[in-house]
Amino acid sequence: MNNIKEFFKTSSERVETFLESYITNSSLFTSGLNEGMRYSLFAGGKRLRPALVYASYSLFKDDYDYVTPFAAAIEVIHTYSLIHDDLPAMDNDDMRRGKPSNHKAFGEAEAILAGDALLTKAFEIMSDTSYSPQMPVDIRLKAIYKLARAAGDKGMVGGQFADITSEGRKPTIELVDYIHKNKTSALIECAIYLGAVAAEAKENEIDNLIAFGKYTGLAFQVVDDILDITSTSEVLGKNVQKDIESNKATYPAVYSLEGAKQKADEYINKALYHLDIFGERADILRDIASFITERNS
Amino acid sequence: MNNIKEFFKTSSERVETFLESYITNSSLFTSGLNEGMRYSLFAGGKRLRPALVYASYSLFKDDYDYVTPFAAAIEVIHTYSLIHDDLPAMDNDDMRRGKPSNHKAFGEAEAILAGDALLTKAFEIMSDTSYSPQMPVDIRLKAIYKLARAAGDKGMVGGQFADITSEGRKPTIELVDYIHKNKTSALIECAIYLGAVAAEAKENEIDNLIAFGKYTGLAFQVVDDILDITSTSEVLGKNVQKDIESNKATYPAVYSLEGAKQKADEYINKALYHLDIFGERADILRDIASFITERNS
Repeated sequence: MNNIKEFFKTSSERVETFLESYITNSSLFTSGLNEGMRYSLFAGGKRLRPALVYASYSLFKDDYDYVTPFAAAIEVIHTYSLIHDDLPAMDNDDMRRGKPSNHKAFGEAEAILAGDALLTKAFEIMSDTSYSPQMPVDIRLKAIYKLARAAGDKGMVGGQFADITSEGRKPTIELVDYIHKNKTSALIECAIYLGAVAAEAKENEIDNLIAFGKYTGLAFQVVDDILDITSTSEVLGKNVQKDIESNKATYPAVYSLEGAKQKADEYINKALYHLDIFGERADILRDIASFITERNS
Repeated sequence: MNNIKEFFKTSSERVETFLESYITNSSLFTSGLNEGMRYSLFAGGKRLRPALVYASYSLFKDDYDYVTPFAAAIEVIHTYSLIHDDLPAMDNDDMRRGKPSNHKAFGEAEAILAGDALLTKAFEIMSDTSYSPQMPVDIRLKAIYKLARAAGDKGMVGGQFADITSEGRKPTIELVDYIHKNKTSALIECAIYLGAVAAEAKENEIDNLIAFGKYTGLAFQVVDDILDITSTSEVLGKNVQKDIESNKATYPAVYSLEGAKQKADEYINKALYHLDIFGERADILRDIASFITERNS
């Protein structure tokens, strides 16, 4: 797994270098906004989604800088979603990645606006042709459309809506499936898509990679649910056992802890199946899938 | 002014027909989200920004359906901004367009998510090539980039951030200028740009139209500030005199009421100057500019 650690590290570095220079401030009236955006962007996340963009891209090409705007944009979307999810009206989380959550550090209105600004920024980055100017415009447009679909009311936001509005009610399998598919898996699937479409992969290849992304995303969220029960707040850098307290719709809640672990394995196996056509060159994606199921934070 | 009323009416109808069919729901777990999005989208706004897109487009072409996705997208962005602006942590407004504001009707978390979903939806609409499929992809991409810039941290969100973080402090001219330019004018300028770029106007034409949009946007916000003092909540459909109560950075606060009225005239004159090169075919834009300064709500 040294290989995978190295891959995550270089992925992070590429994306952080890009964001470091891209997320600038131009007015003294918005320095607090810029500070809030950067606070959450550079809070030491795992950069899983960018790593997936690069990993997917690596099956076809190796000029990684070319796809960096896409990797950065999806991380920016992910970051906005964490800021808004943590808000008092939503999950009301005081801690994130071992630090005060954005609204705790900057105030609630400021956190809402930092989230809005980041969400908008993702589409600015995606449509900014001064980066990777040689990218065909139709590829860029397809990527923007997919990202908007994955992040919106029929993707991530829809999943979060279903999640918060179902709290306190007895969760069903249908509900848990809907939440996991949309709240988490949609964006992970999109990350895989972005790498593949930037590399101009064939339709059949893209279809298999999307399926890999979908099941990997589901496995990721099941493991997240399991860790909320079995891990500690020191390891996770956020409060634990909140899901049970608020009667959240999770896999362990509908399948039991043991059933959830089996479900995670099932999803990973389905994910790996869709990599078969790529042979050894998909090893980095296999390693990331293992990393996701075996992680402890 | 019958002409202009008719223009607003047909602009509204075009955009509403589009949004009516575009903003759909696909899961029983998100019906509340869809309801919240539609509640604010169809709350009877003036549809000023769509009218500006169509008016700008009308200088060059008349197949208005072609530019409807752009007109719809900018209205969707405007609507999200109203929902988030009204939130308790922001302006804390209970009323909007004579009805309970979104969070009053649906709850705070739901309103945050409806706003997030609408913001994302705007970029889905902009990049959806199943509408106006004959539009060149580079035009579409330019339009997306401009919209993201106008709506983001160096545009509308930046303006709103400066606005809320300066409350209670003595406003300066620089601050008021920054807020008005970014919070309101940026999106109005963008609306004018979207119409012109979709019509594939020449660079010089686009530059003049952008300048018209900028000054019209500034005039619009000055009039808004004035109406907050001189109008009633019955006429405006929202609470009035809130600006003074919260010591907001407004034109009347830094220039006096009379000075603000002069400023509005000054901006409109500057705006109109940039229409000269277009002759009579820009009359609809002149009428909209008059409508903006002479309105009472």
